Amino acid sequence: MEPGSNSQMKLVTGDAGYLLEDVPHLTDYIPDIPTYPNPLRFNPAYSVVKQYFVDMDDTVAQKIVVHKDSPRGIHFRRAGPRQKVYFNSDEVHACIVTCGGLCPGLNTVIRELVCGLSYMYGVNKVLGIDGGYRGFYAKNTVTLTPKVVNDIHKRGGTSLGTSRGGFDTSKIVDSIQDRGINQVYIIGGDGTQKGATAIYEEIRQRGLKVAVVGIPKTIDNDIPVIDKSFGFDTAVEEAQRAINAAHVEAESTENGVGVVKLMGRHCGFIAMYATLASRDVDCCLIPESPFYLEGEGGLFEFIEKRLKENGHMVIVIAEGAGQELLSERMQSGDQKDESGNKLLPDVGLWISHRIKDHFANQRKMLLTLKYIDPTYMIRAIPGNASDNVYCTLLAQSAVHGAMAGYTGFTSGLVNGRHTYIPFNVSFYQILL
Amino acid sequence: MEPGSNSQMKLVTGDAGYLLEDVPHLTDYIPDIPTYPNPLRFNPAYSVVKQYFVDMDDTVAQKIVVHKDSPRGIHFRRAGPRQKVYFNSDEVHACIVTCGGLCPGLNTVIRELVCGLSYMYGVNKVLGIDGGYRGFYAKNTVTLTPKVVNDIHKRGGTSLGTSRGGFDTSKIVDSIQDRGINQVYIIGGDGTQKGATAIYEEIRQRGLKVAVVGIPKTIDNDIPVIDKSFGFDTAVEEAQRAINAAHVEAESTENGVGVVKLMGRHCGFIAMYATLASRDVDCCLIPESPFYLEGEGGLFEFIEKRLKENGHMVIVIAEGAGQELLSERMQSGDQKDESGNKLLPDVGLWISHRIKDHFANQRKMLLTLKYIDPTYMIRAIPGNASDNVYCTLLAQSAVHGAMAGYTGFTSGLVNGRHTYIPFNVSFYQILL
Amino acid sequence: MEPGSNSQMKLVTGDAGYLLEDVPHLTDYIPDIPTYPNPLRFNPAYSVVKQYFVDMDDTVAQKIVVHKDSPRGIHFRRAGPRQKVYFNSDEVHACIVTCGGLCPGLNTVIRELVCGLSYMYGVNKVLGIDGGYRGFYAKNTVTLTPKVVNDIHKRGGTSLGTSRGGFDTSKIVDSIQDRGINQVYIIGGDGTQKGATAIYEEIRQRGLKVAVVGIPKTIDNDIPVIDKSFGFDTAVEEAQRAINAAHVEAESTENGVGVVKLMGRHCGFIAMYATLASRDVDCCLIPESPFYLEGEGGLFEFIEKRLKENGHMVIVIAEGAGQELLSERMQSGDQKDESGNKLLPDVGLWISHRIKDHFANQRKMLLTLKYIDPTYMIRAIPGNASDNVYCTLLAQSAVHGAMAGYTGFTSGLVNGRHTYIPFNVSFYQILL
Amino acid sequence: MEPGSNSQMKLVTGDAGYLLEDVPHLTDYIPDIPTYPNPLRFNPAYSVVKQYFVDMDDTVAQKIVVHKDSPRGIHFRRAGPRQKVYFNSDEVHACIVTCGGLCPGLNTVIRELVCGLSYMYGVNKVLGIDGGYRGFYAKNTVTLTPKVVNDIHKRGGTSLGTSRGGFDTSKIVDSIQDRGINQVYIIGGDGTQKGATAIYEEIRQRGLKVAVVGIPKTIDNDIPVIDKSFGFDTAVEEAQRAINAAHVEAESTENGVGVVKLMGRHCGFIAMYATLASRDVDCCLIPESPFYLEGEGGLFEFIEKRLKENGHMVIVIAEGAGQELLSERMQSGDQKDESGNKLLPDVGLWISHRIKDHFANQRKMLLTLKYIDPTYMIRAIPGNASDNVYCTLLAQSAVHGAMAGYTGFTSGLVNGRHTYIPFNVSFYQILL
Repeated sequence: MEPGSNSQMKLVTGDAGYLLEDVPHLTDYIPDIPTYPNPLRFNPAYSVVKQYFVDMDDTVAQKIVVHKDSPRGIHFRRAGPRQKVYFNSDEVHACIVTCGGLCPGLNTVIRELVCGLSYMYGVNKVLGIDGGYRGFYAKNTVTLTPKVVNDIHKRGGTSLGTSRGGFDTSKIVDSIQDRGINQVYIIGGDGTQKGATAIYEEIRQRGLKVAVVGIPKTIDNDIPVIDKSFGFDTAVEEAQRAINAAHVEAESTENGVGVVKLMGRHCGFIAMYATLASRDVDCCLIPESPFYLEGEGGLFEFIEKRLKENGHMVIVIAEGAGQELLSERMQSGDQKDESGNKLLPDVGLWISHRIKDHFANQRKMLLTLKYIDPTYMIRAIPGNASDNVYCTLLAQSAVHGAMAGYTGFTSGLVNGRHTYIPFNVSFYQILL
Repeated sequence: MEPGSNSQMKLVTGDAGYLLEDVPHLTDYIPDIPTYPNPLRFNPAYSVVKQYFVDMDDTVAQKIVVHKDSPRGIHFRRAGPRQKVYFNSDEVHACIVTCGGLCPGLNTVIRELVCGLSYMYGVNKVLGIDGGYRGFYAKNTVTLTPKVVNDIHKRGGTSLGTSRGGFDTSKIVDSIQDRGINQVYIIGGDGTQKGATAIYEEIRQRGLKVAVVGIPKTIDNDIPVIDKSFGFDTAVEEAQRAINAAHVEAESTENGVGVVKLMGRHCGFIAMYATLASRDVDCCLIPESPFYLEGEGGLFEFIEKRLKENGHMVIVIAEGAGQELLSERMQSGDQKDESGNKLLPDVGLWISHRIKDHFANQRKMLLTLKYIDPTYMIRAIPGNASDNVYCTLLAQSAVHGAMAGYTGFTSGLVNGRHTYIPFNVSFYQILL
Repeated sequence: MEPGSNSQMKLVTGDAGYLLEDVPHLTDYIPDIPTYPNPLRFNPAYSVVKQYFVDMDDTVAQKIVVHKDSPRGIHFRRAGPRQKVYFNSDEVHACIVTCGGLCPGLNTVIRELVCGLSYMYGVNKVLGIDGGYRGFYAKNTVTLTPKVVNDIHKRGGTSLGTSRGGFDTSKIVDSIQDRGINQVYIIGGDGTQKGATAIYEEIRQRGLKVAVVGIPKTIDNDIPVIDKSFGFDTAVEEAQRAINAAHVEAESTENGVGVVKLMGRHCGFIAMYATLASRDVDCCLIPESPFYLEGEGGLFEFIEKRLKENGHMVIVIAEGAGQELLSERMQSGDQKDESGNKLLPDVGLWISHRIKDHFANQRKMLLTLKYIDPTYMIRAIPGNASDNVYCTLLAQSAVHGAMAGYTGFTSGLVNGRHTYIPFNVSFYQILL
Repeated sequence: MEPGSNSQMKLVTGDAGYLLEDVPHLTDYIPDIPTYPNPLRFNPAYSVVKQYFVDMDDTVAQKIVVHKDSPRGIHFRRAGPRQKVYFNSDEVHACIVTCGGLCPGLNTVIRELVCGLSYMYGVNKVLGIDGGYRGFYAKNTVTLTPKVVNDIHKRGGTSLGTSRGGFDTSKIVDSIQDRGINQVYIIGGDGTQKGATAIYEEIRQRGLKVAVVGIPKTIDNDIPVIDKSFGFDTAVEEAQRAINAAHVEAESTENGVGVVKLMGRHCGFIAMYATLASRDVDCCLIPESPFYLEGEGGLFEFIEKRLKENGHMVIVIAEGAGQELLSERMQSGDQKDESGNKLLPDVGLWISHRIKDHFANQRKMLLTLKYIDPTYMIRAIPGNASDNVYCTLLAQSAVHGAMAGYTGFTSGLVNGRHTYIPFNVSFYQILL
C-alpha cells in the first residue's frame, strides 16, 4: 500500500478458523525504510534473558473459553520487543499527550513512556504536549526526561495537564510535521482514540514516517476487548472507603440508608467490583440492568424489606444507572416538582431525593439517608501497585511497538498477554 | 444542700485571684453516703506507681498565658482516681448513651467506659442505651461487657446507635430510676449536654444517688474551654484526602479550581487545621471571618489573581462560612436565579455555582471547578491513634469522677490536663 | 471406575492438538448418584441472567500465545454452576480447613465458601476445622454461618486458625467419615495440597461420596499454571511501604543503602512486582537469577557504581535469593566469620552484614545501611479490593464444582477464566 | 552584658513565687542594634486580626496542676511575632541544618522555616546545610526558596540530608561568619542541641549578630519540659500497623505470641501510647519500669498465664527496655548461650529468643512467636496532619523569635502554648 491509499483491516487467516486482526506498519505505505538491530540486544540487563525478543509469529488468542471442536477465532499480534527496529535511536522525536478526565495511573504511563524510550532505546527527545489535544497547536511543549518524570507516578492526575475537546486534525498533524515529531503517544478515552485514528489516517495520507500509538484510558473499564483498563483496580480499591463510610453511617441510625454513587456511564464495572469487594452492599444499580422504583419488584419495596430485616442498608449506584428514569422526568417538564432533573442531573442525588420523598410521604416511615459521591476523590489518587505495574507494561509495549514500526494501534492486555490492537476496525467495535 | 434544692455554682476563691469552679458532688444533696477504699489500691497494675491517686487539692489552671502580676483566674478540679469512692463495685449499675451525629472515636469512648468500669473498678453491670435519648424509654437496652466491646474501637460510627431529638426529661429519669441505674454516661454535643444538665437537675430534685457525667462530642472542636474535642484530630487527618484530590484535579487542568467543604457550623477549626496541615490550599473560608464575593477585596478578585499567577487554586470552605451571604439571597426571593438557595442549601454547592457563574458570564473566562464534600467519609472513620488515646483517658476520667461521687460534670482536657468541668454554669458559657 | 481403583489422569483429546486435562467426578467411582436441578434456577438474582449456567463442553485454553499453525494444547474444565447438582442441599455437610502461613484474603475465602454454600445452594451445615489439619482429629470444630463470618474479610489472618504439619491421612478421613462430612474445602500451599490429594485418594479408596476441593494458597505466587494466587496483589501493594521507607532512609544520608527483604522462597514474583510498581529500586535479587558478590559484575561493584552516580540506592531481595551463597558459607564452617549463617539464616540480614563489612573493611567507604523485613506486616493484612473479588470468585467456583459432583480438583484462574484443575497429575507438575 | 562575657541564666522573679526563665537576646551583648517595625504590620493577611502581636509581658506557666496556695513557679517567654524586629528583611541570611536520625515532620519544619521567613518577613536568602553539622564546612550549601521546598512535607526523611557527629565548634562558627549567615536554625536531638549551645556560646564570645535557634527533634518524645516532640504522633499512629500485624499473627495460631519492638531509648512513650491506642497489647515493656524474666512475677509466668487464658498474646517492647538484663548477659561472657548478645544487640530479637527458648526447653510448650521491628518504616513516613500543623507552628515561632532578636533558645510547646525556652540552663535539665 502506498501513501495516499486508504487504510483497511489487515486480516490474516489460518487453519481451524484462525483469524489475525493485524496492525498497520509504517512499511505498509512507506517502502524501503531502513532497519536497525534492536539496541536491547546490547543491554546487559536484557541480553541475559534467553529469548528476550518476541517471535514474529506470536499472536494472542481472544477466544479462551472453547469447545473441543470450536473454531479458533480472532487473534492479535503479541506485544513486545522485536529483533529489528525501524527507527534509529537518535532519529526518534516522540511526543505524549493526555486527554479527557483524570484516571489513576496516568502519570505512571507518562513516566514509563519516557523512561522506556530512554533506558531501553536510548531515545532522548521526548516532548510533553500541554493540556490535551489543543496543546499541539495552542501551547508550548514541555521537555520530558527520566529525571523530570522520576517521581510523578507517586502523584495523582496528569503532570501534562488535560482537557476535553480542542481536536483539529490538520492543525495537529501540521504541528507534528512542523516539529519533526515521529512517534505520537496518545492517552485518552473513547473520543480521544477516535481522534488518534483520524491523526493516523491523515499521517498516512501525507505519507509521513510517524508512528501513532494509542493507550486507552477509561476508569470505567468499558472496553470489552481488553482485560481491564488502567486505573480501574485503584478506583475499585478507593471506592471501598466510600462504601465503608456509607455502611457505618447506615448502621449507626435506625432505618439508616447509605447511598454511594460510583463512576460508570455505560458500564457498572466499578460499582459491581466495589460491591463484590466490600460485601457490605445490599443493592447495586448499574446501567446494564434496568430497574424501577415503585410497585412490586421495585426498588422501594426492596428497601423497605431490607430495612425491616436488617435495620439499615447500603445502595451503590453507577452514574449511568437509571438514566431512562431521569429522562422520563425531564421530558415531563413538570416544573413544580422540586426534585426536577435540571437541578438534579446527578443520579445519586436524584435517587436519594426520591427515596427520602417516598418514605417520608408515601410510607410515613422515618429513614435517615446519607449520600456520598466520592468520584473526584477516586479519580485523583495515584495508581496502586497493581496499576503501576500494568501501566508500566502498557507503556513499554507501546514503545516496543512504535520502535518496531507498527502504527495505528492500541496497546492492550488480552487474556493476560500484552497485544497490539489495530485502531481502524476493532477499536470502534469494542468501545460501547 | 438537700434534695430538692436548686443547684448553684460551687465557687472556691483563693489568694492572688484564684477561683475554682468546682463540680457538684452526690453529698451536696444526699448526706451520709458511705465510702469505700478505691479498689485500685489493691490492683497490682496500679499500686506499683507512687502516688497514683490524685491529691484532693489538685486543680488545673485555665489561664496559662500570664503576666508577672496578673490574677490567677479560673481553675477546674483535676480528674483522676481518688482514694475514696462513693459506690461499692457490686452496687454500680451504669448506662451509656450516644446522641447526635457521628464522630470518630465514639466507639472508643464506649469501649473504655465499659473496660474502665470493669477492669479498674470491678463493675459488671453496664447497659447500652440504643439509638440516643429515646432509647431510654422506647427501646430495649444492650448489655455491655469488655468482650462485647472488645473490637468496636476499630470501627467507625457508634455501636450503640444514635439519633437526634427524643429528649424527654421525666421519661428518661423515670427509666433511670425504674431500671435502678446509678451512673449515667452521656456522650453528645451541645444539645445533648443541655439534656444532660436537665437530667442531672431532675435527679437532684428527686434526691437520687445517681451520678450524671457528660462527655462532650463535637467533631467541629467548638468548645473553647477544652483543648480539643475527640475526633477532631482524625477529622483533620482524613480531610487531607479531599484536599489532595481537589489539588490534583485543579492542577491537572487549565484554570482548575478545587473546592472542598469541611465541617464547622460555627467554627472553622477543621477547615483551618486541615489547611495548615495540607499547605496546598490557597484560600480558607470560615464562619469567624466574613467575606464577600464581588468587587475589590472580594473572593472573585482573589480567585482571578491566583489563577493568573498559578494556573490553579484550592478553596476550603467550612460549612458555616458565608451563611449571611446565603441568607441574603434567600430573602431576596429572586426565583429566576437558577442557583437559588432552596435548592442549594449547601454552602459548598452554592459557592461553586457562584464562582462558575461569575467566571463564565461576567469574566468570559474558562474555568474548571471540581467540588468535593467529604463530610460523611470523614465522620464515619474510626479514631486515629491520637484520638484513641484521648478517648481512653476521657472515658477513664469520667469513670474515676463518677466513682468518686462527683456528678453534673463533663470530662474535659484543659491545658493538657484532664479535669472535671461543672455543667451548670460553665458549660453553657463555653459552648458557642 | 469403581471404588478401590486407582485414580488416573482423565485426558480427553480433540482436533488440532486439543487436550483436556479433566477433573475426577464422584460418578467415576460411585455409580448411580441421584442428581437434582441446580437451586440457582429458582433464585431470582441469578435466573434473570440469560445463560447463567456453564455449558458442559466449555473448556479453557492454557496456551494463549500461539502461532497460526500451532497445536491447541492443554485445556481445563471451565468453573461455574452446572444445570444439575449431585448433592441435595439438605444433605450437604461441608467443612473448611486452613493450613500453613498467613496470606491476605484467607478470611475472604472462608467467608465466601460459607456464604456461597448458604446463599447460592441453601446449605446450612458448614464446619470450620480449628488450627489446620490436626484440627480434624485433635480439636473441636466451629459452626460457620453467614452471620459468624460476616465481617471476617475485613481482618487479616485466618479466623479458623492455622498450623503446619499434623497431617495424618487415616485419622483425617476417619474424622470426615465419622462426622458425616461430604464436602471438604482445603485452603493451603504446596504441602497442604499434597495432603489434599492423599485425602482424596483415600476417600476414593473407601468409596465415599465426599468431594475434596483444594484452594491453593501461596503468597509467593509460585504456581505456574494459574494466573496468580490470592493475596499476591495485596502483598505487592503492602510491600510498597517498606520500599518507600528504605528509599527515604537511603536518600537522607550520604551513601545510604536501603535493603528490603520480601517473601519468595523459590520465586521472585513479589520482589519483582513490588520493584516494578515502586520504581525506586536500583537492584532486585531473586532466586531465579543467580548473582555473586565480589569481583567484576558482582553486587559490590554495582553498589559502588550506583552510590557514586546517585549517592544512595535501594536493594530488594527475595528470601530465597542467593541461598547457594549462604550454603557455601555454611559448609565452609568458617567459625571466625562473625556473620556466620547459623545465626543469620535470613538472607536479608546476611547480605546486609556482607555489604557493610565489604565497604567498611575492603573499600574503607562510609556507608549507612538500613535493613527492613516487612514479612509479617505484609502477611497479616486483610485482602485488598482486588484480592477480595478474586477470593470470592475462587470460593464460589469451588462450591459450584463440589455441588456439581467434581472432586480431587483445585479452583484456579487460567488466562482470566476460572477453571477446575485436577489434583492428581497437573498439580504436582505445576508446583515448583 | 558585653561580647566576651559568659552567658548566664536570665531569671525574672515576681509575686507569689513567679519565676521567668528568660531567653538571651542579641542586645545582651551587642548594644545599639537598630530596630524596625515588624513587616507583618503591613501584611493584609495578618493586619486584620486584632492584637496579632504578642504582648511583651506574656509568659507561659509551666506549672498547671496547682493548689489554692501553691507558688506560681517557672514561666517561659511566649512565642510569637513582636511589634519590633532586630533584623531588616534584606539583611537576613539564614541557614538550616538537620542532624541525627530521621523523624516524621523534618521536611515540614524545613519547609515552614523557609516559607515563614519568606512570606512573613520577606527574607529571600536561606541556605540549606547538606548532611548535618559537617555540611557547614565540608560540603556545598543548597539554596532554599518556597518553590524548592513546596512539596517536601509530603515526603518522609529530610531533604537536606542528615548525619551523626561531625561537630566542630570553631569550623562551624568560622563558616557561619565567613558566609555572612546571621540566623542559624538547628534541628536535631539531644546531642545536636548541645552543639547548638556551643555554637551560640562561641558566637556570643565573638560578639556576632547571629541568632541561634534550636528546634528539638526526638521521635521518642523524651523532653519533659515540652508537651510533645514533633513526629511523635505520627510514630504512634504508624506503630499501630505493626501491632495489628502482630495481633493477627498471634491470633491465627495456637499459643501465638506477637512481639513488636518500638523506638524509645530512655523513655517508653511511643510504646505506651501505641499500646493505649491499640488496645490489642497484653504487655508493654518500657525502660522506666524494670522487669525480670523468670520466677514469680516474671515475664515468662505472665506469658504462660495469658496464653492459658486467651490462647495468644501481644508484647510491645521499647528498644531501651530491659537493657540491664542484656548487659548482665554480656558481662557474664557465657559463650555457650546460642542467643549471645554480641549477635543480638537488639532487645526485641533478644527477648524473642529468650521466650522461645524458655517455652521450648523449660516448659516443653509449643509456642509460635513472630517478631516485628517496624522502626525504619515508622521513622521514614511523612508527618501526619497533626504533626504538620505542629511543625508549622514550631517553625513559625522560631522565625518570629529570631527576627525579634532572641537567640540561644529552643522553640517548644508548653501546656499547649508556644514558648521560647533558653538553651543554657533548662535545656540540659530537661533532656534525660
